[in-house]
Amino acid sequence: MRRFSHKRFSGGGAAVKISDIGEFGLIKRLAGGTIFNPNGVIKGIGDDAAVIMTGQDRVLLVSCDMLVDGVHFIYGKIPLFDLGHKAVAVNMSDIAAMGGVPRHVLVSLALPSRFTVEEAEELFNGMKSLLSRRSVNLIGGDTVRSDVFTIDVTILGEALIGSVIMRSGARPGDVVMVTGSLGDSAAGLEILLNDQLSGRVSADDREYLLAAHLTPEPRLDQSSLLVKLGFVTAMMDLSDGLAGDIKHICESSRVGAEIYLDRLPYSQCAARVARMAGKNVVHWALNGGEDYQLLFTVPSGKEEEVIEAFCGAGLGAVTAAGRITDPGCGVRLVGFEEDIKHLAKGFDHFSG
Amino acid sequence: MRRFSHKRFSGGGAAVKISDIGEFGLIKRLAGGTIFNPNGVIKGIGDDAAVIMTGQDRVLLVSCDMLVDGVHFIYGKIPLFDLGHKAVAVNMSDIAAMGGVPRHVLVSLALPSRFTVEEAEELFNGMKSLLSRRSVNLIGGDTVRSDVFTIDVTILGEALIGSVIMRSGARPGDVVMVTGSLGDSAAGLEILLNDQLSGRVSADDREYLLAAHLTPEPRLDQSSLLVKLGFVTAMMDLSDGLAGDIKHICESSRVGAEIYLDRLPYSQCAARVARMAGKNVVHWALNGGEDYQLLFTVPSGKEEEVIEAFCGAGLGAVTAAGRITDPGCGVRLVGFEEDIKHLAKGFDHFSG
Repeated sequence: MRRFSHKRFSGGGAAVKISDIGEFGLIKRLAGGTIFNPNGVIKGIGDDAAVIMTGQDRVLLVSCDMLVDGVHFIYGKIPLFDLGHKAVAVNMSDIAAMGGVPRHVLVSLALPSRFTVEEAEELFNGMKSLLSRRSVNLIGGDTVRSDVFTIDVTILGEALIGSVIMRSGARPGDVVMVTGSLGDSAAGLEILLNDQLSGRVSADDREYLLAAHLTPEPRLDQSSLLVKLGFVTAMMDLSDGLAGDIKHICESSRVGAEIYLDRLPYSQCAARVARMAGKNVVHWALNGGEDYQLLFTVPSGKEEEVIEAFCGAGLGAVTAAGRITDPGCGVRLVGFEEDIKHLAKGFDHFSG
Repeated sequence: MRRFSHKRFSGGGAAVKISDIGEFGLIKRLAGGTIFNPNGVIKGIGDDAAVIMTGQDRVLLVSCDMLVDGVHFIYGKIPLFDLGHKAVAVNMSDIAAMGGVPRHVLVSLALPSRFTVEEAEELFNGMKSLLSRRSVNLIGGDTVRSDVFTIDVTILGEALIGSVIMRSGARPGDVVMVTGSLGDSAAGLEILLNDQLSGRVSADDREYLLAAHLTPEPRLDQSSLLVKLGFVTAMMDLSDGLAGDIKHICESSRVGAEIYLDRLPYSQCAARVARMAGKNVVHWALNGGEDYQLLFTVPSGKEEEVIEAFCGAGLGAVTAAGRITDPGCGVRLVGFEEDIKHLAKGFDHFSG
């Protein structure tokens, strides 16, 4: 009776709830001792994607992102076509964050039995629309029944080994930069969830901000330009919000960082909606999450070159918003004293 | 107002419920037109794993399997350590089914907030125990909150291009073979769910059959031997049951098949439990599912060579249980007339 002779169900001992240590705490607890054949593994757990050697000078990038109804999206509040787009976009964003090119996805779907075939097709049409535009293949997956609608996308990308940009290369003195504007996705979410805003937001603002939230465009062209520039020291994508995400670069690179609140790039659309909703647009820019912009560092003095290159290529805004500091300084938000107190928290799936 | 101007939520038109067309019907509806860059794609959707060129003579095999609480397992009925083993094992089985070697996995976990850190660790310990024994790395994943405990494992394997065995190579006249015994997993499940059996099944039978259900061993060594033999024409793993799974080989290879019910390999343990439970062991062998044995075809006359090679390598039983027939013959179960009527259905996640 080996199999049921001790309480393997609970693990025994004092129970620690996952919400006590949070998503990243849990990952730290689980992620140790997971490489049993290091041959060819350049990076396992701990960056936007794993990095595996596949040839003399080529690597495979692999990542996955799971989206759960009621947690990451609300069924009925996001068109299924857009949800399909988004599920693929957030994964492409992880490949962009490594300086790679996305090539293939696998899609695991857990669908409630009330789902119709047409709904599943609409979801897939949203995926395929972005996949075809980026020449990325859907090569496999799984389809199962569940009471909770869940989408898990695995993405495979490729890169030249010398082009991969990890989180671990930032050095004190480097400039912290972000693409695009931050907080637009949070503003779009506010429009979706706050009925009182309905009718007060202009059609243009509404369209722009909803698109940022529902159908974010992965920053693949921006990533590719940054790879070409060749001097980016660290990079990741902004999924949880700058305030939380910069900590990952700091931990991986063993450095500190200062973020200048007065330099955070946010759109006028987001600022208008924040004002109407009685929210702080800087808070959205810092903690809103789901912007899927690129957060990266470059050696001091190179920021102008980046800005000019983006301008020349028509790739939108790019902003120097902070500075890498010595290890031990932690992450400091620099700006108005009263702002800082309630601005400094990232998103955690298991907290709160 | 482009975004909400038409009913993209429902897709419009007559709604077809997924349960009406089943899991495989749904996959057929969704799987068309998914390759947007055919360069390097040898096989996309439609086999046990996708096959992607990575070098002159090497391919990457990729597959994923999602397990949902209440559908694929029942929380509390399977020790978390065993569930971790199983989640990895079923994915390794897909790589075995292609004639490949598993190399890396990514694990996406959706956990209810009541979960403890110790429980998550126990689940991971089960995964790591099998991963370390097979020298396979855990290189990434995602961890999110959900009301329904869900595990999605993506596996990456590799193979020489000439070694890959797909479902599509079976030819009329080929012999249908299976490794091991069938129905053991179904017998183990019966023991878990049928309280009336408790105490009546011998300790040895119980241990053997529960292990078959809870901690199936991926047939990697058997697969590797079959690759070496070099004459296997088609292969897949048995996840849903022989009766349903053989249809996939028939469809991919555009052939028919006969399965000889009196030659199905089942264990005496399973037969004893079936008798106690008033069940038909041949039904379990055909439709029980989750055996994760290999189903494969060899040219007529080669079956003895396979049996001898398995015997010589100490790799357990292997049985000739059927024959590939001409296209248009469909799948025929050959045996006692009264058995056949209720034996001919495979498992479908969305039916019933």
